[in-house]
Amino acid sequence: MTVLLTGFEPFDGAAVNPSWEAVALVPGVRAVQLPCVFGQALEHLRAAVLEHDPTVVVCVGQAGGRPDVTVERVAVNLDDARIPDNAGRQPIDEPVVRGGPAAYFATLPVKACVAAARAAGVPASVSQSAGTFVCNHVFYGLMHLIATERPKVRGGFVHVPYAPGQVLGQAGPSMPVAVVAEALTAIVTAAVSVGDDLRLVGGSLH
Amino acid sequence: MTVLLTGFEPFDGAAVNPSWEAVALVPGVRAVQLPCVFGQALEHLRAAVLEHDPTVVVCVGQAGGRPDVTVERVAVNLDDARIPDNAGRQPIDEPVVRGGPAAYFATLPVKACVAAARAAGVPASVSQSAGTFVCNHVFYGLMHLIATERPKVRGGFVHVPYAPGQVLGQAGPSMPVAVVAEALTAIVTAAVSVGDDLRLVGGSLH
Amino acid sequence: MTVLLTGFEPFDGAAVNPSWEAVALVPGVRAVQLPCVFGQALEHLRAAVLEHDPTVVVCVGQAGGRPDVTVERVAVNLDDARIPDNAGRQPIDEPVVRGGPAAYFATLPVKACVAAARAAGVPASVSQSAGTFVCNHVFYGLMHLIATERPKVRGGFVHVPYAPGQVLGQAGPSMPVAVVAEALTAIVTAAVSVGDDLRLVGGSLH
Amino acid sequence: MTVLLTGFEPFDGAAVNPSWEAVALVPGVRAVQLPCVFGQALEHLRAAVLEHDPTVVVCVGQAGGRPDVTVERVAVNLDDARIPDNAGRQPIDEPVVRGGPAAYFATLPVKACVAAARAAGVPASVSQSAGTFVCNHVFYGLMHLIATERPKVRGGFVHVPYAPGQVLGQAGPSMPVAVVAEALTAIVTAAVSVGDDLRLVGGSLH
Repeated sequence: MTVLLTGFEPFDGAAVNPSWEAVALVPGVRAVQLPCVFGQALEHLRAAVLEHDPTVVVCVGQAGGRPDVTVERVAVNLDDARIPDNAGRQPIDEPVVRGGPAAYFATLPVKACVAAARAAGVPASVSQSAGTFVCNHVFYGLMHLIATERPKVRGGFVHVPYAPGQVLGQAGPSMPVAVVAEALTAIVTAAVSVGDDLRLVGGSLH
Repeated sequence: MTVLLTGFEPFDGAAVNPSWEAVALVPGVRAVQLPCVFGQALEHLRAAVLEHDPTVVVCVGQAGGRPDVTVERVAVNLDDARIPDNAGRQPIDEPVVRGGPAAYFATLPVKACVAAARAAGVPASVSQSAGTFVCNHVFYGLMHLIATERPKVRGGFVHVPYAPGQVLGQAGPSMPVAVVAEALTAIVTAAVSVGDDLRLVGGSLH
Repeated sequence: MTVLLTGFEPFDGAAVNPSWEAVALVPGVRAVQLPCVFGQALEHLRAAVLEHDPTVVVCVGQAGGRPDVTVERVAVNLDDARIPDNAGRQPIDEPVVRGGPAAYFATLPVKACVAAARAAGVPASVSQSAGTFVCNHVFYGLMHLIATERPKVRGGFVHVPYAPGQVLGQAGPSMPVAVVAEALTAIVTAAVSVGDDLRLVGGSLH
Repeated sequence: MTVLLTGFEPFDGAAVNPSWEAVALVPGVRAVQLPCVFGQALEHLRAAVLEHDPTVVVCVGQAGGRPDVTVERVAVNLDDARIPDNAGRQPIDEPVVRGGPAAYFATLPVKACVAAARAAGVPASVSQSAGTFVCNHVFYGLMHLIATERPKVRGGFVHVPYAPGQVLGQAGPSMPVAVVAEALTAIVTAAVSVGDDLRLVGGSLH
């Protein structure tokens, strides 16, 4: 079984992106870096899927400010950029795929993935929103590709905290990249091995 | 034009629910209280829509911990309760409507509603997730009702902070109910009067 | 009995300072605005104390980001400015009063003041640090003046949240100025009328 | 030169205390565990100082919820417990040392210690309050001991985040114990080797 993991290049002036740093440390997977650019990111993702023909695809992105690893539940058909992407584009309230459904659910076993990360000793939780920037764009594009062309592939998205070096003096949460990689390894293992998802508490009141 | 506003009864042991307290203060609308119970809440909402035949429906709920009024963008077809509802039910990873689409977007002019609340002096923002409890359940049920039976109705959901009396000693954010009511009044006015939504920055990086 | 309340002028580019807006609404007190300038603020405070000969002095400042009204417990002999004051000065690790003690405790009945604000319906708590900017500078200078020249005066410092208009689109906590004024009124009443402070839980684990 | 590091036993029902876990990993120091009990903790600390005759003493405690390593600046003569200590005592508004000064400043080079932790790649900042529980109690007791009996000793207090295993499902910040130990090693090195403290921005607005 082939697993494809993607991480992003740095954006918003940062020197690193912990999503890529961590993905590059996960053993036994195909690791591909995506540009932080609307449209281009999905072209790279599609090419990687065609090249590697994976059974599982997990795209990974940085969620600066979140304290734990979050497994995303739902991808929304909406680009609404708070800042420009790396090509200077800033779409506002546009669909990712014109005519696509409002959202797709991840086909990863989300609760089992969270449980696996915790069992590996890494704080993790379910997230109900991947935002409306390039991360959600890639997540929605992945799920649309799966829904329309690769229905047997399990796919989803994981957000990871800042690396410590990004917040040395900012009193914000961070997680070492090696710890993130342990969580991703556990998540990939769950994605490959778990059948039906676990029935665990993991919702949000609001 | 008839506007229907709904608020919730108290839940989780609280004595009040600021969503209902504020809704009851908004002039010129039909105000209906919904039970905080999966299923029943939607039955009450449906009955109110049939009775009042509104042009605009805004459901309002409490988002304890949020500091501002948030206009929700997307309703998800998912019940995943972190705590039991007022009837003791705690669904986990079940659809709101079996066979329904993964999500609906609000048909309120979301950005214009946020701008109207701010113009009235009340902090407000767009939210990308209404959670997975009874609030999202009602929001999804409303949008499904609109999509399948009342396509001309504008509908959406607004989350409001705790009332001050709920957090007197907890060092958490709150907003006086009268201030929330001013925001709701401005939002309803925008919902009735604005044509196409405004093109404003309001997305989320994650 | 004369009560002196002080608030600050705006700083850091803001158009208003809610500490002054709220102080100006409190009935039955002498209200004085202080400049947000190291040194000068204390000269103005001293002049006001000499002019009004108060029994109680409560200085009030803005604590942007805090969600509730906080009654400060301890003033520290330290100026350590993260940003320049309104005169462009940015002292780093200098004493407020050379040769003064490391700290003074407020002589307000701190717990009773917090209880009074809550009884008036306003979220409030004890704070263990007034920071190291002009607020703490004024607080320490006040307590030094009291300790060395006016031992019968009750004095202290209260921090207040942003006004709503300062955070309209920032998803940060705020409190209407009229609500802050109710808390200050209750605090002043407690400061004038309470004998020994109440013995209530109000500490911090860290 | 002898360096004494102390950490605490678990408290408030926790299974571990990351302060002790991390202290035990720092090479080349005397490591002593303190009970989380008012009074007893200071007796143990005093015995350790007498036994080891250190040049530098750094006491370390858990600050659950803080995202980074914080070097405390000021110890306050106040016990005000929000929860009972491990012996069931809950002092409210009592002095640590009857007749002692209101506060002591750390004699560690605080800014240099923060800079050293950051240079080692660990997020760190200055804290203006160590709270009013057993951590502050030990910090104040240490500084009083130094001031009255060991004036040449450099002393201070460092707060550390939760370990990851303490917040697996809580979406709160954490830091691996090995990373905390790297910060403590850097801080101890700075405490031993730096002369005058560095003049760096590190204050707090409030």
